[in-house]
Amino acid sequence: MTRYELIANIRSKASFLCVGLDTDINKIPEHLKRAKDPVFEFNKAVIDATHDLCVAYKPNLAFYESLGPSGWISLEKTMDYIPKEIFTIADAKRGDIGNTSKMYARTFFEFFDFDSVTVAPYMGEDSVMPFLDFKDKWVILLGLTSNTGSNDFQMQLCTDGKPMYQSVIEKSQKWGNPDNLMYVIGATHPENFGNIRKMAQDYFFLVPGVGAQGGDLNKVTDSGKNDDIGLLINSSREIIYAGNGINFQDDIRYKTMKIQKEMSEYF
Amino acid sequence: MTRYELIANIRSKASFLCVGLDTDINKIPEHLKRAKDPVFEFNKAVIDATHDLCVAYKPNLAFYESLGPSGWISLEKTMDYIPKEIFTIADAKRGDIGNTSKMYARTFFEFFDFDSVTVAPYMGEDSVMPFLDFKDKWVILLGLTSNTGSNDFQMQLCTDGKPMYQSVIEKSQKWGNPDNLMYVIGATHPENFGNIRKMAQDYFFLVPGVGAQGGDLNKVTDSGKNDDIGLLINSSREIIYAGNGINFQDDIRYKTMKIQKEMSEYF
Repeated sequence: MTRYELIANIRSKASFLCVGLDTDINKIPEHLKRAKDPVFEFNKAVIDATHDLCVAYKPNLAFYESLGPSGWISLEKTMDYIPKEIFTIADAKRGDIGNTSKMYARTFFEFFDFDSVTVAPYMGEDSVMPFLDFKDKWVILLGLTSNTGSNDFQMQLCTDGKPMYQSVIEKSQKWGNPDNLMYVIGATHPENFGNIRKMAQDYFFLVPGVGAQGGDLNKVTDSGKNDDIGLLINSSREIIYAGNGINFQDDIRYKTMKIQKEMSEYF
Repeated sequence: MTRYELIANIRSKASFLCVGLDTDINKIPEHLKRAKDPVFEFNKAVIDATHDLCVAYKPNLAFYESLGPSGWISLEKTMDYIPKEIFTIADAKRGDIGNTSKMYARTFFEFFDFDSVTVAPYMGEDSVMPFLDFKDKWVILLGLTSNTGSNDFQMQLCTDGKPMYQSVIEKSQKWGNPDNLMYVIGATHPENFGNIRKMAQDYFFLVPGVGAQGGDLNKVTDSGKNDDIGLLINSSREIIYAGNGINFQDDIRYKTMKIQKEMSEYF
């Protein structure tokens, strides 16, 4: 998907919501557990209840891998079911030496046909570049993540006086551009959003950490948005586990509508 | 596997060789491509030709994932075929927020029963800890990797005057210990091995980068070994693609014997 198409979707839906499909088979409603492919049936229900209100879906690979080959089949079916105009993110946090990163890129961009994949920056340029070689596909590089461990290395000050995550954001802009590169910036660091926006004015930020992890939608949007909005705010657990009974889809839709309504104020 | 068992294997085989099962279906001998599961047949042949000469096998997950669900089945069969006394490494370079890292840990330690998994440190303590909660299982944390991109962030000097990778090695010793934590230290940085050994005297290092990537076995071993050897030196492409004809197993065995013979000088 191109940047232009993504922005057009955001405007037409008045939404910059990404729904995280972190489907834990132990947490889905009881009546779905008897289905032949419970993970896919649950995802299908989530997609049916949310697809007109969100602009992106983000399955976290860990939840699918933990089920072995059947998890991959559930993920393939989920990818086939997501409407083509919705941006898809493989939240995989991969990154390896060049020839290996290329293999990962093929997995997510060719086998699954994701629009984007999250990539960890620790191994540097040649671990990221192979993901940038695919037309209309995106790298979403970890910048400043939402977890407490982000303080361990990402916030460590370097001799140029800048924290490591700033180095990552600045250096990687020589590898990619706003048409093929985004950053993960956690909602749990709202005080940093204004500065980070200055470092990467035209880039999209994927923002996890709103909801279950404690981040605030309005704080993040007020200080982090740009002229194109430039944000994909993710909610996973708060939406997909909004209900647990036979009417769980209604609970999911109600929660999603509430978030989309908040977002619509920015248009 | 315990540290004691690993060291006993190293001594009894006079080897600290790890064979990287980076099986690329496009690079395996033609006659195997007609098999029902070519990747497993190739791995089986590699294991048959090397298992008495090495102490560890390291499949890189990218090569299996790129084949979709069938790749995972090949990997499961490979894991079942590896003799139980050989240390197994899931080279997956994972790392995510706590509840997600826990899922990855289950995948590699429970579903596949690997002894260890490689983990990327960028997301800090809570992304690594869930992997350390499994008895007799290991985290192999990226320290200083073998690729040129290791210069981008790992070598960046922090305000304490130390490069980032040193922070990773020092800080993570508060999370794990030599019985459940190792480090990836690339063979392409032989000048740093002596210093890194001082930072982590009793820890095992997994050393990629010998062979195809240009690292030197003797240089690394001379400066990096400790009283227990403390090294697992990996070779992937140099061994598994040593031959390409009908007698490829002989070529693989010959190459592996040559490396093991070099290693045996250290016992």
